[in-house]
Amino acid sequence: MKNYFSLFIFMFCAMNTFAQEKQLTLEDLIPGGKTHHRFSPKTDYSFRWKGDDLIQYNLDSMWIAEVRNPGKKKLFLTKEELRTLVDNEKANLDQISFTLIDGKYYGRIAASSKLIFINPEMNDISFAFQTEKNDRNISFCPENKTTAFTVDNNLYLRSTTGEVINISRDEKPNIVYGQIVHRNEFGINSGIFWSPKGNFLAFYRMDESMVTDYPLVDISAREAKLKNIKYPMAGNAGHEVTLGIYSMQSGNTVYMKTGEPKDHYLTNVSWDPTEKYIYIAELNREQNHMQLNKYSVETGEKTATLFEEKSDKYVEPQNPLFFLPGNPEQFVWQSRRTGYNHLYLYNTLGTLIKQLSSGNWEVNKVLGFDAESKNVYITSNELNPIEFQSFQINLQSGKKTQLSKAPGVHSPQLSASGKYMTDYYSNRETPKNVDLIDISKGKISRLQTAVNPYSDYTLPEISLGSIKAADKETDIYYRLIKPTHFDSTKKYPTIIYVYGGPHSQMVLNNWPGSVRGWEIYMAQKGYVLFSLDNRGTSNRGLEFESITHRQLGLEETADQMEGVKFLESLPYVDADRIGVHGWSYGGFMTTNLMLRHPDKLKVGVAGGPVIDWKYYEIMYGERYMDSPEENPEGYEKTNMNNLAGNLKGRLLLIHGDEDPIVVWQHSLSFLKTCIKVGTYPDYFVYPGQEHNMVGRDRVHLHEKIARYFDDYLK
Amino acid sequence: MKNYFSLFIFMFCAMNTFAQEKQLTLEDLIPGGKTHHRFSPKTDYSFRWKGDDLIQYNLDSMWIAEVRNPGKKKLFLTKEELRTLVDNEKANLDQISFTLIDGKYYGRIAASSKLIFINPEMNDISFAFQTEKNDRNISFCPENKTTAFTVDNNLYLRSTTGEVINISRDEKPNIVYGQIVHRNEFGINSGIFWSPKGNFLAFYRMDESMVTDYPLVDISAREAKLKNIKYPMAGNAGHEVTLGIYSMQSGNTVYMKTGEPKDHYLTNVSWDPTEKYIYIAELNREQNHMQLNKYSVETGEKTATLFEEKSDKYVEPQNPLFFLPGNPEQFVWQSRRTGYNHLYLYNTLGTLIKQLSSGNWEVNKVLGFDAESKNVYITSNELNPIEFQSFQINLQSGKKTQLSKAPGVHSPQLSASGKYMTDYYSNRETPKNVDLIDISKGKISRLQTAVNPYSDYTLPEISLGSIKAADKETDIYYRLIKPTHFDSTKKYPTIIYVYGGPHSQMVLNNWPGSVRGWEIYMAQKGYVLFSLDNRGTSNRGLEFESITHRQLGLEETADQMEGVKFLESLPYVDADRIGVHGWSYGGFMTTNLMLRHPDKLKVGVAGGPVIDWKYYEIMYGERYMDSPEENPEGYEKTNMNNLAGNLKGRLLLIHGDEDPIVVWQHSLSFLKTCIKVGTYPDYFVYPGQEHNMVGRDRVHLHEKIARYFDDYLK
Repeated sequence: MKNYFSLFIFMFCAMNTFAQEKQLTLEDLIPGGKTHHRFSPKTDYSFRWKGDDLIQYNLDSMWIAEVRNPGKKKLFLTKEELRTLVDNEKANLDQISFTLIDGKYYGRIAASSKLIFINPEMNDISFAFQTEKNDRNISFCPENKTTAFTVDNNLYLRSTTGEVINISRDEKPNIVYGQIVHRNEFGINSGIFWSPKGNFLAFYRMDESMVTDYPLVDISAREAKLKNIKYPMAGNAGHEVTLGIYSMQSGNTVYMKTGEPKDHYLTNVSWDPTEKYIYIAELNREQNHMQLNKYSVETGEKTATLFEEKSDKYVEPQNPLFFLPGNPEQFVWQSRRTGYNHLYLYNTLGTLIKQLSSGNWEVNKVLGFDAESKNVYITSNELNPIEFQSFQINLQSGKKTQLSKAPGVHSPQLSASGKYMTDYYSNRETPKNVDLIDISKGKISRLQTAVNPYSDYTLPEISLGSIKAADKETDIYYRLIKPTHFDSTKKYPTIIYVYGGPHSQMVLNNWPGSVRGWEIYMAQKGYVLFSLDNRGTSNRGLEFESITHRQLGLEETADQMEGVKFLESLPYVDADRIGVHGWSYGGFMTTNLMLRHPDKLKVGVAGGPVIDWKYYEIMYGERYMDSPEENPEGYEKTNMNNLAGNLKGRLLLIHGDEDPIVVWQHSLSFLKTCIKVGTYPDYFVYPGQEHNMVGRDRVHLHEKIARYFDDYLK
Repeated sequence: MKNYFSLFIFMFCAMNTFAQEKQLTLEDLIPGGKTHHRFSPKTDYSFRWKGDDLIQYNLDSMWIAEVRNPGKKKLFLTKEELRTLVDNEKANLDQISFTLIDGKYYGRIAASSKLIFINPEMNDISFAFQTEKNDRNISFCPENKTTAFTVDNNLYLRSTTGEVINISRDEKPNIVYGQIVHRNEFGINSGIFWSPKGNFLAFYRMDESMVTDYPLVDISAREAKLKNIKYPMAGNAGHEVTLGIYSMQSGNTVYMKTGEPKDHYLTNVSWDPTEKYIYIAELNREQNHMQLNKYSVETGEKTATLFEEKSDKYVEPQNPLFFLPGNPEQFVWQSRRTGYNHLYLYNTLGTLIKQLSSGNWEVNKVLGFDAESKNVYITSNELNPIEFQSFQINLQSGKKTQLSKAPGVHSPQLSASGKYMTDYYSNRETPKNVDLIDISKGKISRLQTAVNPYSDYTLPEISLGSIKAADKETDIYYRLIKPTHFDSTKKYPTIIYVYGGPHSQMVLNNWPGSVRGWEIYMAQKGYVLFSLDNRGTSNRGLEFESITHRQLGLEETADQMEGVKFLESLPYVDADRIGVHGWSYGGFMTTNLMLRHPDKLKVGVAGGPVIDWKYYEIMYGERYMDSPEENPEGYEKTNMNNLAGNLKGRLLLIHGDEDPIVVWQHSLSFLKTCIKVGTYPDYFVYPGQEHNMVGRDRVHLHEKIARYFDDYLK
């Protein structure tokens, strides 16, 4: 047992001892459940920044609070006033954001037929845009008071006077303007990029004509209806993206000469503060060579490659350039080039001025700078791999100061000047606290504390800890939940809830122990629940993550089996009744575990599972697996179809019939193979659902999964 | 118990008492299983007619046997000779059929690249047609020695010299020539009709452009691929069919002026022996009014309506006109106008000459006439609703003579002159006998007897009997199978195998008690099996069948519940463990039973089930249900989605993902409803399969079904 150490244990206490038999239902525990809203930790007030003004609000009213004395506050706007401002359209106070326009902060709110900007005093509308039902990706430019937006595949501008200009013009089929490209990979979450002074609009143009139509079918129509999507699969033709820049003055569009091969990836578009240049983190299709290229906005010519990053596995740029306020020649760049995500201060000639952070931990998020560009603010997991704290880093001295203190996962919001921070955080014991941090004074004051919404219930014991990975060296973290009303003399059936894929971290010191509602439900029913972040998951550095390269599922499964060994060592775990459940990558992992270790795992439920990586999309698929042509043996050994004959236990596969992420073909092809080799999985479909079951179906889904374990594992 | 009487009981006897523990596997019992071929009753020789010559054959040789002394036979053709004749292409002796050409019978055989006619002496090829890979529906005309065939949607002629003529010419998309129309309903099994003397070719032309594309998806492709079909649903636009007649002499095509509304049904196309006229049994879309219309081949004008048939439920013409040999002015028509299928002798003026058969029983099949047109030969179930015997009916006197004698189900083949009949038959005790009937002498002689292929196994006791239907009057027939090694002191789980839809009869006195292999498998596992032909099924008359009109599933379910009552009365049936399984209409019935009687039926397996008749096709759907607009309340009360909330027991639904008959939408929409109302069916998919699972998948399917009952009913 010496390899296992328990980090901490937290027991939820029943506040009301008379209500011990009160059971949480899936309606309480699952998003989409009728009573689920009752169980998210709530504070009386929420906060956001309006410049350096601290805005406090609830659903009825909005106040300006004094930052240094938040108890003192001034009523700012009521819901009735807001309702009048939006002509009685539906709009709530919590939807107001604040935008700096002409040196002042305006309240921005999108009602059903318009986008409205309320003046700084919040008593009148300063200007408004009409919006149509099919407008999407509405992007407002404060500098020129124009919105850009898309309708279907086209990109338009709309002025406050209502004038509309079509930027995309040609409107060919399969050419998409102004939308997210490369399927949200590489940190891409927009296709519209206003220039800093509002003179230009940069936008993605995506040509999908070379990508095969992938047929999805809507069975809710009177006669089932085809819904084609463009889904480029690993190894097949990918879409071709370019970046156009529209000049507000000339009305002309210049395309950046990003050249060939055209199926490269144009990521992290960043404007130069001067508006003369634009930067693109360009990645080759193989995703092992990135160039940070600088283009002339006027000519579209590439004027410089600031620097390059290469890897024998993959380079994955995920953040744009963060220019220093008031210093148009310096920016902060995030890179994992040393193995962990850290900050680098560069100038626009591409000269590295300074590495700002280093160590065997990762910067999680850049929150911003102070107004004088003296400091950058971040969150990182330096103190503990399963926590995020906020830090200040001095750009000159490199001095790092911890700002948040309480253990847990912190989500701070920086004020405009960088003098203050609101800090939302939780940990295993704390449902939700909101603090105000006065950064220069290092003073933390409590703004709000949420009440434990589970106080009337007996909750299971949840503990977090770590074991050694299959390499016998690396610490990997787990969450362990004992059944409610645990009896140490009993042996319990045990379910591993797994995800295990890149860009994930399931075990975190947040509330309540980062547990999912379904796990509490199953603990109530008398199961032990266990989750483990195997190697291959996030926030532990590149080596930890990329050990899985070209062989997804193998090392991850080996680590999960260390988890099984740990479970077997626990006196209250019935080693003959260990099951596994996961969704998406977790469905893939569930299938791996069931088929690679059929004598250890008795029951599995694999949702939306990847079965064969050749059916997955290019961007994600080729990053981790290379293409099927480059890595045939890797695709073979990770293809669940090749292991279908190993199935011994009960395996339920579940899929949404309109899944556009892990297409239905995955699980259906697996059924086909099992039928061929004579094994007997079970199956279920959520018609009309996509990759994740949402709404009321999600409640049904979790009951369905629970019943499957009750049938075969209990 | 007085309502129940047992017709007969038959016990399979173990021939080898030492082999009692030898178990039949699904590989033995299910078509598609590796050893299934071993268990079909086999005779040493088979027989077919070459005119009045009795041809005897096995896989090695073919003989001409003397009809009056079949032991005396002359070698005719060997497989080596055949192989030489077909240039070593694949061809077997049992594929040879005999065609009358120029007064002699030629052997016809289709090899992989050609259609060959072997001369009457069977020693040389007389003529041959090249065939291409995509040729379909090849139809040879002996009179002009030309084949008609289709490729994709088009219709062609090919002469022995290889010349090809395109008859369809326009080749528009969605216009289909020469193929089956109206989805095989109304007895339609061809789209090509050569005229008696070979001067004309009649063919269906089907315009499907107004029918919605229905999307099926092939997931076995590298990227899932769309496979649209045309599937007109009840109440929606149907395809429009016309009948063209191509003149071999002029090369012109004349379309029969069948007029409007164009979505009527052109059924049972029959040539007049003179070739001057063609008859079409035309049915309105409502299917309650049939006209037997006569058209001029030359002009396409309708020259007469011979007679009409109407019904307040439906008229269902299923057989063309049978013209009397040597009498071009008289034909036999089959009709259920009196409530049972009987024969009527008409002349071509539409005058009814005589009703040839009558009574509360049904003519099953018209076998043909004798050469002098004195007698017509039929099979019918006059003697017993679950048997078919052959009869001779004198056209003049109406005298009916029973030809076959042994109890059971007879499938006779008449010789050219009508003097002889080979009679293949089986009953519960007789795996397969082949008799020769010398009709004029009434002499029956045994040609072959098959050995019981199950002789090494202990088979369950199978009995057939009848109970009263829910109307307390009508006799309905059942099959009951006791578990192998039955112990009368035990209580057994029981499974109802159900179909229950029109055009079906499951309980027949054939071998082995009309039982399916899966039933034997389940009896071996210790289940009681039960099947019942409820009202609504075939061969019992129109009232028996059409009680279900506009309300499919209701009366059928009521009758099946009489079966449940009967089962509950049996001391060895465990009334708490009754399950049900069926496919297609039987899947619909299974779902009905599970949802309408959730306290009686514990476990169900519904394969390819109809769930909501509005998703079913026009022809079948509107015949029995009228359209959704005409019968909204009927569609509502038969829609399983409306009962989804009743589900209490375990219900497994199974579907082929390329089902073009009961489209996938049925079972998927049911899942969607169950999810919505919070019930929990189970599900399985056979990818790449259509309406019925075929090949090896069929074995897997039956094991899957068996395991489901083992999990939840045993």
